[in-house]
Amino acid sequence: MLKFVAEAFGTAVLVLVGCAAITIGGYAPTFPLGILSVGIAFGFSIMAMVYAIGPISGCHINPAVTVGATVAGRMSWIEAGGYIVAQAIGGLIGALVLYGILSGRLTGYDLAKQGLGQNGWGAEFLGGYGTGGAFLVEVIATFIFVLVILRATAHAELVAVAGLAIGFTLVILHLAFLNVTGLSVNPARSLGPALIVRGQALAQLWLFILAPAIGGALAGLADRALSGPENG
Amino acid sequence: MLKFVAEAFGTAVLVLVGCAAITIGGYAPTFPLGILSVGIAFGFSIMAMVYAIGPISGCHINPAVTVGATVAGRMSWIEAGGYIVAQAIGGLIGALVLYGILSGRLTGYDLAKQGLGQNGWGAEFLGGYGTGGAFLVEVIATFIFVLVILRATAHAELVAVAGLAIGFTLVILHLAFLNVTGLSVNPARSLGPALIVRGQALAQLWLFILAPAIGGALAGLADRALSGPENG
Amino acid sequence: MLKFVAEAFGTAVLVLVGCAAITIGGYAPTFPLGILSVGIAFGFSIMAMVYAIGPISGCHINPAVTVGATVAGRMSWIEAGGYIVAQAIGGLIGALVLYGILSGRLTGYDLAKQGLGQNGWGAEFLGGYGTGGAFLVEVIATFIFVLVILRATAHAELVAVAGLAIGFTLVILHLAFLNVTGLSVNPARSLGPALIVRGQALAQLWLFILAPAIGGALAGLADRALSGPENG
Amino acid sequence: MLKFVAEAFGTAVLVLVGCAAITIGGYAPTFPLGILSVGIAFGFSIMAMVYAIGPISGCHINPAVTVGATVAGRMSWIEAGGYIVAQAIGGLIGALVLYGILSGRLTGYDLAKQGLGQNGWGAEFLGGYGTGGAFLVEVIATFIFVLVILRATAHAELVAVAGLAIGFTLVILHLAFLNVTGLSVNPARSLGPALIVRGQALAQLWLFILAPAIGGALAGLADRALSGPENG
Repeated sequence: MLKFVAEAFGTAVLVLVGCAAITIGGYAPTFPLGILSVGIAFGFSIMAMVYAIGPISGCHINPAVTVGATVAGRMSWIEAGGYIVAQAIGGLIGALVLYGILSGRLTGYDLAKQGLGQNGWGAEFLGGYGTGGAFLVEVIATFIFVLVILRATAHAELVAVAGLAIGFTLVILHLAFLNVTGLSVNPARSLGPALIVRGQALAQLWLFILAPAIGGALAGLADRALSGPENG
Repeated sequence: MLKFVAEAFGTAVLVLVGCAAITIGGYAPTFPLGILSVGIAFGFSIMAMVYAIGPISGCHINPAVTVGATVAGRMSWIEAGGYIVAQAIGGLIGALVLYGILSGRLTGYDLAKQGLGQNGWGAEFLGGYGTGGAFLVEVIATFIFVLVILRATAHAELVAVAGLAIGFTLVILHLAFLNVTGLSVNPARSLGPALIVRGQALAQLWLFILAPAIGGALAGLADRALSGPENG
Repeated sequence: MLKFVAEAFGTAVLVLVGCAAITIGGYAPTFPLGILSVGIAFGFSIMAMVYAIGPISGCHINPAVTVGATVAGRMSWIEAGGYIVAQAIGGLIGALVLYGILSGRLTGYDLAKQGLGQNGWGAEFLGGYGTGGAFLVEVIATFIFVLVILRATAHAELVAVAGLAIGFTLVILHLAFLNVTGLSVNPARSLGPALIVRGQALAQLWLFILAPAIGGALAGLADRALSGPENG
Repeated sequence: MLKFVAEAFGTAVLVLVGCAAITIGGYAPTFPLGILSVGIAFGFSIMAMVYAIGPISGCHINPAVTVGATVAGRMSWIEAGGYIVAQAIGGLIGALVLYGILSGRLTGYDLAKQGLGQNGWGAEFLGGYGTGGAFLVEVIATFIFVLVILRATAHAELVAVAGLAIGFTLVILHLAFLNVTGLSVNPARSLGPALIVRGQALAQLWLFILAPAIGGALAGLADRALSGPENG
């Protein structure tokens, strides 16, 4: 049971801190926080949670990671289901807490205009990429991300720094692809803000569930192929 | 005795370096140093001190961390009292040294206008958030920060990188919440500058003592719940 | 065989992520991503791949590193040949995938004007340096980079953090020298974009093969001199 | 003998990379590289060299560190003399190589106007601080820096990450104090550029020899006091 609480808590922190960097920190309209800072906010949130809850649940805090780990044969599909439900709940809680904080702004906060750090794509969204590019980016980026996680945690001598390596990997994926989709690679990170902002974010949510799931599953298959005794 | 000297020294370095990045480095009015740099200055100061004085005192350099560690049952309240007094003295020394350096500026330094990196909130302060939002942010951010500290130091195999993990956590909390309160999560970090700048900073000091103390205590309770033998 | 697949994959990720940070992230014309972010994208891509494929192939993903390791006596020239072919193929794949993603931009992407993150030099290129300066910079930077790699991996107790050290080294070399050549230190990283962009990038490709090879070989000789039993 | 070559090499790399970030990377006049990037260039150069030459010479590459280590009783004054001479030569070589690269700029490089990343202070220099503030900053910053180095390398279990901790410490000292003196904390880093730029840089060199030496010696005394058996 504690595992599921940990996953919900960790996902809530990831969404709260990452999306707060975009909305409170002030990405884009008012304050040029920059892509690097947004990437660091998400990447190091994962890292912080690895050290906080890693020994309890493994710190997936991302359904795509859970799918990858299950395909790789490291956990059962039943347990994976529990993880994913907990992550979805956590993502929603994180977005709700952020919305509560933003409501405390004395000059108000225009949710429709300034958003909640939601993912998306299209002519009006950041770099203006189409559906094909968005789908491709989310599959590839999730594959890279989940593969680094599965490999970095497969070797005992790397465990101590695995949290740092995983965090830095999420940073560079933001640097590379933020302008395409805002970068999700995590259905739970997309779900929370989309349920609150609604509109286009909710209509586009399917891609941020489907593409990361495919990328994560492919990474699980690759990990399985690489886990033979000869490759350590 | 050495423990208390170490805590005072570490807190002085944290306040000196972090607030110098804001005032000398030039956040906001003259030079766009940026939220990321301010966050790194505070976060990596903690990290540097973990390696300098960690083996001596544990490197709390923050009353909220000491409260959390005590609630978690890792030290006595009597020793905690000594730590907190030392941290308060250290924070004041750090702010005084910074004020001394700023006084060496040939064109002068307007303390009332340019400040000393003090915390605060309200319509005139950074993002313009109210008291409720400020309180909520300091409780939540301190809870996350102290929980990462307590968990990262609970596992022997993580100790070597714990300093990095703790530092990065403080960085992301700045990215997320600097525009609300300047981010304190540390009564001693708020105390030093407030005693010198006075005015609004001193009038608002209560929140930066109370909210981090609550957040730290909650993290101590959470750590206690997570420290059962099954969770390692 | 798996070694060569790993090298091709790792090089593809390096070129995709690093050059995507420049072109999608938007270095220079549209969005001031900055030298630091470009350096981090390349540097931490290496780091991510060290943790993903390091235990399989050693994660060279750079012909200059392979030359250095071979000169240092750590692998045979025959195996090195296989590594270099795999890296070249990987670099091309990475550039092709990036080109595919950029083609998904709804307003189009002008390859001739906005480039693909290719390396170069001359009056029209970034800081405007001549051939001599460009050659000198690539030899020196590659020497430093490959020497850090060979030394950091020579000591068992440093292996866990070697990936971080190597990544950070590539970051600082970008900060120092990006304005001269865009910084390559890696023939495979230069090859992929040059084959697609063609024109000047292809005409200048010789320097980004020759200079890193010389720098890598010199680092291999230095490593050999430093590997006596007395120096550990 | 190899120790001295390693110290000269490491100091040359530090000065070359750090000062190249300022001059080629383009701090201040032409390109807003920012304080953070300059700090990272110097800080991570130290880190890279720790992994490259640390096992050979301990990687001081800074006379203030050598003074601190000698006062702390970790090496003889005779050996320290050799280290310091090697560091001074290395600093000069690094500055000369940088000057050579800058000379390859097709539109020329105005040494008198754009400098070579030299240290300094006064009304015309960055934040405009006086001699007293500059001296105080260099003593305090060197004390913090050398103390972190001496303590982080005193515990066997921290050695693997000591290079990272030391590098990050130099980063934050730049964030805090770059606008006062350009931040030296290292006589060899100041010496090289000053010998080439001459003029005010040479006239002010005394402070960047004296103040870091005092700060380093004080850190050595503090380390000695902290090295009792009870403090581990």
